[in-house]
Amino acid sequence: MLIVKAGGGRDLNWDGLAADLLEARTREQVVVIHGGNAVRDDLAVRLNIPVKRVISPSGVSSVYTDKEALDVFMMAYPGLASTEIVARLRRAGLDAVGLSGVDGGLWRAKAKREIPVREGDKTKLLRGNLTGRVDSVDVRLLGILLEAGYLPVVCAPALDEEGMIVNADNDIAAAVTAVSLGALAMVFLFEAPGFLAEPNDPGSRVAEIPAAEIEARLSEARGGMTKKLIAVSRALAGGVRRIYFGDGRTAHPLRDALAGRGTTFR
Amino acid sequence: MLIVKAGGGRDLNWDGLAADLLEARTREQVVVIHGGNAVRDDLAVRLNIPVKRVISPSGVSSVYTDKEALDVFMMAYPGLASTEIVARLRRAGLDAVGLSGVDGGLWRAKAKREIPVREGDKTKLLRGNLTGRVDSVDVRLLGILLEAGYLPVVCAPALDEEGMIVNADNDIAAAVTAVSLGALAMVFLFEAPGFLAEPNDPGSRVAEIPAAEIEARLSEARGGMTKKLIAVSRALAGGVRRIYFGDGRTAHPLRDALAGRGTTFR
Repeated sequence: MLIVKAGGGRDLNWDGLAADLLEARTREQVVVIHGGNAVRDDLAVRLNIPVKRVISPSGVSSVYTDKEALDVFMMAYPGLASTEIVARLRRAGLDAVGLSGVDGGLWRAKAKREIPVREGDKTKLLRGNLTGRVDSVDVRLLGILLEAGYLPVVCAPALDEEGMIVNADNDIAAAVTAVSLGALAMVFLFEAPGFLAEPNDPGSRVAEIPAAEIEARLSEARGGMTKKLIAVSRALAGGVRRIYFGDGRTAHPLRDALAGRGTTFR
Repeated sequence: MLIVKAGGGRDLNWDGLAADLLEARTREQVVVIHGGNAVRDDLAVRLNIPVKRVISPSGVSSVYTDKEALDVFMMAYPGLASTEIVARLRRAGLDAVGLSGVDGGLWRAKAKREIPVREGDKTKLLRGNLTGRVDSVDVRLLGILLEAGYLPVVCAPALDEEGMIVNADNDIAAAVTAVSLGALAMVFLFEAPGFLAEPNDPGSRVAEIPAAEIEARLSEARGGMTKKLIAVSRALAGGVRRIYFGDGRTAHPLRDALAGRGTTFR
């Protein structure tokens, strides 16, 4: 089984990805997990609800989610992004079914109602955060859909321990999903040629990263890349054998990534 | 099998409905179909995209859907409305799965790209309309979910003949779904005590309407009620035996409707 995590950037080549998915599905079962950041950010601007980014004491950037931001998230991810992606994949001949982590209780997250954030030299505790980290997956619904020949297309939000809707990181959720399904391969597609030793230099792509090197590479990572590396660590530790980063903007993003044209983890 | 169509009004009592659904599911399989008008109208105001209502030459009110309006529709229906309804039903103990008509190719609509509209005394042809009328249902996905014990929770949009996303009336879609699934009973819940002989007089509820009288009642109907009566006609003609209108705002909306406290069609 193959898990494909496709980023939510504007330039992801979904038509190329659809063609690659048709090919991949002749070999194995596939689950697609997708983002929706570009749609979310556009909508937040139009609604005049700025996306509130915060920095954790360890330097990881994330989004603070109050009720207003969660509403925007739901409009963007399971609303606009998922519906358009599912329709597009269906037109390409894939029998796609869109799900959020809420459906069938798929993604269960540990709520982080209070988060420590760095403000200048100080650390502050921010309350009322509607975010969680997906730590378990009810794979029953995915199993039924895969068995019936459907292509599940999944995105956040998730449900927390009390059944409340929470924003959740799609990369971590993808890793936990891959481990829960016993998938042997994972691909992360985004708007860069792979893992970059110098975040702003597209020429600094690292072709291979052994598992033992991931920790050291964390210091080179910026923004969303940090969470992707954490997701890779978790997936490798959980038994996923082959993980690939790839450029989602090429003519054949999935095929290229699987051929090692991005970054390969072992 | 029972099909419950719950309107998209602000005052629908979803917690009461959830309790009734738990009870109903001990007797038979249930599919929920829901609207999202209140969420859609709010969002349209916030985005400064007025909902464009048009009147057909025969006097039926509907919404003209350009790309901008379709985006708002997707944000509101499968986005915010569906995700919150599914989470709420799950908290009540129902194993709900949200689907739009796009998922699994569930709702296939006949596109109405051009619609005749009445403007004063004249009839004009409006182009670029992204609306369709659901005329066939691929029940395979619903069957699989019902068989596995899930509660499907469905809303528009649908896909047209070319696989493009189109807005679609949920009442008509509910009727076609009921017929396709061979459901014997249907309930429409909304923000009124039932079918009203005088649309503005809540005291004018009609307790029973025989099938032969529906055509005559169409002249009394206003706004969304017209489409509900058309949906009832179609469902009865397709073999649905018992159809109920009921007040979605009571403590037990579904139980009350099934007990004939709204309007019963035979």
